[in-house]
Amino acid sequence: MNVYRYEENPLVTPSDVKPHREDFEVIGTFNAGIATYKDEVIMLLRVAERPISTNSEKVKSPVFDPETKQLKIHEFELSDPAYDFSDPRIIVEQGKDQFSYLTSLSYLRIARSKDGRHFTIDDDPFIYPSTNLETYGIEDPRITQMGETYYIYFSAISPSGVGEVLVSTTDFESYEHHGMIFCPENKDVLIFPEKINGKYYALHRPVPKSKGDPEIWIAESDNLLYWGNHKHLIGLRDGMWDDGRIGGGAVPIKTDHGWLELYHGASKENRYCMGAVLLDLQDPSQVIARSKTPILEPEASYEVEGFFGNVVFSCGTVVEGDVIKMYYGVADTSMACAELSLKEILASLV
Amino acid sequence: MNVYRYEENPLVTPSDVKPHREDFEVIGTFNAGIATYKDEVIMLLRVAERPISTNSEKVKSPVFDPETKQLKIHEFELSDPAYDFSDPRIIVEQGKDQFSYLTSLSYLRIARSKDGRHFTIDDDPFIYPSTNLETYGIEDPRITQMGETYYIYFSAISPSGVGEVLVSTTDFESYEHHGMIFCPENKDVLIFPEKINGKYYALHRPVPKSKGDPEIWIAESDNLLYWGNHKHLIGLRDGMWDDGRIGGGAVPIKTDHGWLELYHGASKENRYCMGAVLLDLQDPSQVIARSKTPILEPEASYEVEGFFGNVVFSCGTVVEGDVIKMYYGVADTSMACAELSLKEILASLV
Repeated sequence: MNVYRYEENPLVTPSDVKPHREDFEVIGTFNAGIATYKDEVIMLLRVAERPISTNSEKVKSPVFDPETKQLKIHEFELSDPAYDFSDPRIIVEQGKDQFSYLTSLSYLRIARSKDGRHFTIDDDPFIYPSTNLETYGIEDPRITQMGETYYIYFSAISPSGVGEVLVSTTDFESYEHHGMIFCPENKDVLIFPEKINGKYYALHRPVPKSKGDPEIWIAESDNLLYWGNHKHLIGLRDGMWDDGRIGGGAVPIKTDHGWLELYHGASKENRYCMGAVLLDLQDPSQVIARSKTPILEPEASYEVEGFFGNVVFSCGTVVEGDVIKMYYGVADTSMACAELSLKEILASLV
Repeated sequence: MNVYRYEENPLVTPSDVKPHREDFEVIGTFNAGIATYKDEVIMLLRVAERPISTNSEKVKSPVFDPETKQLKIHEFELSDPAYDFSDPRIIVEQGKDQFSYLTSLSYLRIARSKDGRHFTIDDDPFIYPSTNLETYGIEDPRITQMGETYYIYFSAISPSGVGEVLVSTTDFESYEHHGMIFCPENKDVLIFPEKINGKYYALHRPVPKSKGDPEIWIAESDNLLYWGNHKHLIGLRDGMWDDGRIGGGAVPIKTDHGWLELYHGASKENRYCMGAVLLDLQDPSQVIARSKTPILEPEASYEVEGFFGNVVFSCGTVVEGDVIKMYYGVADTSMACAELSLKEILASLV
């Protein structure tokens, strides 16, 4: 697969972004939703921030309080035997199989570009946690444009779980909040950009507890708010690059041969690559073909090294003729972009 | 709380039910959905059957094949070190945190009664696994009547997970299959019996993996097929009878004071009781009150002893004036019924 990584990569890094509070630092600007609005490319960045630590013996966890609309900062001693701090992203009570707190808070912020390579970052957050289901932050947005409306949806994290919330905007200045459209545990939702035979469709990625793996499902809707007729779409593949977890990546691209979905797959060792799956144009619950090998894997230094290395994770593309400009988060740290040929991807699938 | 258990309890036991195949035995007839149809009470029994074992060194697992529409029987040696057989309900691959197979297959079968105490059981299954999401069986049905239509929904189990499937019938002879309405992991769905301010509502019980407990949520719909605006409703209560897991039980009962939901709660030691929660009539996502102590707990011998003892688990009631006839599964084995006073339950809540 021919992959042209931009010379400017990484396009946005944490040092490019001013924290939203003086006592915080930005540790990640990644996994951005992508849209074109007027004559600009919009990156809706996931910005991860944490309280600046002045004491290396302590770790802090920021939590949004929906009553006061303020952050509350929880503080932990790294020597506290009640907790496991070995994964830098989370704080786990000893003996529990779930995390208790996150060490950073993510929200969504806009970066704008005329050329798709040089981005200017807005001064303020665009979408910030606002409800009791978003108290641990909001992450990994995707954007589906229909007419003049942009539907933005993202993972919402709280002690009650991880689900998917929908908002909509027409101007990237204000937005309407539509509540949680997929209940815990679910993320990596991708809404198709048009109705198919009178119905909206979305990919989604449940994570069940007692049975079943993190795999890609498909659902249908007649209003984008309520979803049903859930079907299992594609699963993990033993011994392959996507045998650990998979999830939808970019908004599905309509081609003559079918709906092309660029999805992420991780190995059991948490190496995240991008692959492709082709779905039937008339019935996207039917799989036509799927990548045997990744279309993009972590190779550049900014993909291999970082807060959580060996990750390429796309949440959106800009398609111009045969050129797919695939924007993607790298190493849970920064944003990059690579161009791939639509024809070449399709040819690799059939 | 005054509880009048029927003298006839248990009302239906495995020995009352003829297995659907000669080489199978019935091990459970429990957790029945309840409806009144014409002049009869209908119990839609969860019937659990397993292949008759002629060799005590072996255990078998029946799996429905959606291609051939036949059961395939998997056989395991109890001495096989690759598996853990310590929970008689499931077979677990060593080192995995999920079950691999079930040791029985559940389907749904009708029992009918004129007096609500003496039931005649249909000769054949009514609803049997039919899709790739039901290959490990279908369990714990509930029935919501609206007009002449009975909406029946139940847990569907497969290697892809545990979700909730909806069917509908008008005659309890044939039914229409509407697909999966809540994706994995979810069960204990309860659809309210009428629209509230123009919307349908349902309780549901997700089981998330990385964060969140088995707790009760509420969702809304405009057609019963597609669901959204998920909200967390009530949670576990530390140190109380419902600190392990909770889930909706019977179809919500409309009262002057609010929607009365009889729900099940289990302790961390898996003792299942029934409690009550009162929800706002106009906005059922608002909780008015909740039982401090159970309204029913396992005490009778048939509740304490059985395949999985210390369980009372109601999936439906018949309400006549002040009398709630609460039908309930006991010990994952049989069906029983107890009468409670609606007024007394409401008084205990306020």
